Amino acid sequence: MKKFVITIGREYGSGGRIIGKKLAQRLGISFYDKNMIDKIAEESGFSREAVEALDGKKTSSFLYSVFMSTQPVTLADTLFKAQTDIIKDLAAKESCIFVGRCADYVLRENTNCINAFVYAPTEVKVKRSKEEYQDKCDNYEMFVRKMDKNRASYYNYYTPNQWGFRDNYDILINSSVGIDNAVNMLASLAESKFGGKF
Amino acid sequence: MKKFVITIGREYGSGGRIIGKKLAQRLGISFYDKNMIDKIAEESGFSREAVEALDGKKTSSFLYSVFMSTQPVTLADTLFKAQTDIIKDLAAKESCIFVGRCADYVLRENTNCINAFVYAPTEVKVKRSKEEYQDKCDNYEMFVRKMDKNRASYYNYYTPNQWGFRDNYDILINSSVGIDNAVNMLASLAESKFGGKF
Repeated sequence: MKKFVITIGREYGSGGRIIGKKLAQRLGISFYDKNMIDKIAEESGFSREAVEALDGKKTSSFLYSVFMSTQPVTLADTLFKAQTDIIKDLAAKESCIFVGRCADYVLRENTNCINAFVYAPTEVKVKRSKEEYQDKCDNYEMFVRKMDKNRASYYNYYTPNQWGFRDNYDILINSSVGIDNAVNMLASLAESKFGGKF
Repeated sequence: MKKFVITIGREYGSGGRIIGKKLAQRLGISFYDKNMIDKIAEESGFSREAVEALDGKKTSSFLYSVFMSTQPVTLADTLFKAQTDIIKDLAAKESCIFVGRCADYVLRENTNCINAFVYAPTEVKVKRSKEEYQDKCDNYEMFVRKMDKNRASYYNYYTPNQWGFRDNYDILINSSVGIDNAVNMLASLAESKFGGKF
């Protein structure tokens, strides 16, 4: 079978990461999320602390772009470039799943690709943030909204597209249909699109 | 098996209607689209010509709402009310699929329901408009955009939601993944959600 890639964008607390992980297990392919950051840190000399400090901290694309116009290449941009190279290298080497990191845009030339986006109602995301991730904060609704705002700013800054807007993706799934149902649907699409049997 | 409903919103030329029709055949349930209009015409005294003249002609929700504020109940509203009643009656009587007609909103109290939205890149919609529907117009891109604008205005006027926005739906599918793949994914979701074997 030809190498293929699945990218998953996701709202914070929607369960997109666990859907990606289960899907990778089901398809027998690699899964890249935080371990990709480790790889970046290892291969390109970023310390893990630097990566985590920069990761998703782009809270205002407008202010950031004003600031950027006065700066040469920043550490954040160097990190993004390193991530981009690693995503492209991995996708060229093996079939795999990427969660986040604008991978749908980075791999836009790759035709053997499924781009998915996972979202969920606020109450579902709040529950996951509270119970599963055990985030500590005063107002979970505001916290979850803020996390999504960060993701949108990051994506909208580094790509010409709009985060979560349907035109960028092949499929958008509300994870309240069930994590396993979402995995089943994506596996069914992968099976017919890439011609495997999963 | 408990009665269930699938609603499909769709961009013009995306193939959402044919996906609904094939899905209904696959699941062995009824499909309502234009034949629903016939039913409305028949049961509530609207002539087919009146229904077709009004159908999807709400091109500006703002102007329409200004106009509406000076009017008592219009023919369009009476038609919408009749459609709503028929959708609710049918959903109470049998498992079925509705395409369009704000059915996701009309049936928002129905928990045994999947709400889907089908979209496609402009070139796919233009191709379908030209070759399959054989629409006659000067500029197909503009025509397709106009048809979608009409649908959005209609939906946004009759519901508090935004047409095509992910939060209203369980799943959004880009039909360029393939009509049959879309049908397979929706059948897989129906199978796990409603507990049948299709």
